[in-house]
Amino acid sequence: MKLYSYYRSSASYRLRIALKLKGIAYDYHAVNLLQAEQRCDAYLAINPLGLVPTLILDDGARLTQSSAIIEYLEETHPEPALLPENPLARARVRSLVNAVACEIQPLCNSGVTEHLKKVMGVSDAGIGEWYERWMPRGFVAVEEMLETASTAFATGDAPGMADIFLVPQVYNARRFNLDMAPYPNITRVVDACNELPAFIEAAPEQQPDAPSS
Amino acid sequence: MKLYSYYRSSASYRLRIALKLKGIAYDYHAVNLLQAEQRCDAYLAINPLGLVPTLILDDGARLTQSSAIIEYLEETHPEPALLPENPLARARVRSLVNAVACEIQPLCNSGVTEHLKKVMGVSDAGIGEWYERWMPRGFVAVEEMLETASTAFATGDAPGMADIFLVPQVYNARRFNLDMAPYPNITRVVDACNELPAFIEAAPEQQPDAPSS
Repeated sequence: MKLYSYYRSSASYRLRIALKLKGIAYDYHAVNLLQAEQRCDAYLAINPLGLVPTLILDDGARLTQSSAIIEYLEETHPEPALLPENPLARARVRSLVNAVACEIQPLCNSGVTEHLKKVMGVSDAGIGEWYERWMPRGFVAVEEMLETASTAFATGDAPGMADIFLVPQVYNARRFNLDMAPYPNITRVVDACNELPAFIEAAPEQQPDAPSS
Repeated sequence: MKLYSYYRSSASYRLRIALKLKGIAYDYHAVNLLQAEQRCDAYLAINPLGLVPTLILDDGARLTQSSAIIEYLEETHPEPALLPENPLARARVRSLVNAVACEIQPLCNSGVTEHLKKVMGVSDAGIGEWYERWMPRGFVAVEEMLETASTAFATGDAPGMADIFLVPQVYNARRFNLDMAPYPNITRVVDACNELPAFIEAAPEQQPDAPSS
């Protein structure tokens, strides 16, 4: 498989974790978002939304949208499972996934903040307020959903789809200095994940396109 | 089942279509977003993100996030199917779903535009530009994905999960006067859906909380 990824894209990061947890090998193709490579014709032919990640299967099939791709991997490579078996438990995991994927990430990504800054003239302080408005909203809900659980990871005793979405979002929140003190359960779960090889190997700083520090 | 819904919320509208297609009866509970009922303590106890829809099952279990709920309905009420059987085909449907649910709707909903207007002082013209920036992006990608299909509906000869997400987004786009001329395939599919009883009954103007015209 070929993975088109940017080291710091949280959607790419999610998919890298899923691939690592499933033990699926892939070739890494970097798409430099800072140099707008995602809007070049060559990449738009691969992914018409101009977004990372894209996963190209061995037969050439092209998959887009991280949640859709991870559900595909779960269906075609069921072990280890990233979703529980019970439909109600699956709904709970997917609700956590979507709290991140539909409520936080779409508003707190570089495409949106660049638009706010460059097109709408929003100041750096205004961008900070934007993050403060939209990041905590999703985290508050996720924290409440995690409070009732006493599991090592978000939804069980092994990492699953909810963890895959939470870890990159918390990485992003920390990068923007969001105070994580109000979210002890999220912090506990994410820190547990970050001890595991799959999460360590999928981390932004471990990718071939990460700048050497 | 009990459905907490607002007549004009596109996420509520998606779930209403899915329930109607599956033939699942429900009691309708209106949550008036214009009067901020979604942020009252009573509703936050039901849905901690303060979002509609919420579906309460007969045993009291509480489901949130429209995609997660529709996947649950698909798993527990498999007929008629809203997703195809083949994993690659399922990934294609979910990619269309997420192009709407993660790329368009989170940026083009009333919570975000109210924040832009009231907190950030963005003018009405600026809101118009915001819609023009974010709505077409997702539609262009969806249109391209639909171009290769010659099916009556988005992903097959019966309406499925992609149609369920497209119809409310196009309803919203038309409400904000987005020019749909560049999207003939989306328009064709949505118009075909809107001829069907499930889509007609789920439409905003048919809901108990819609203002009488």
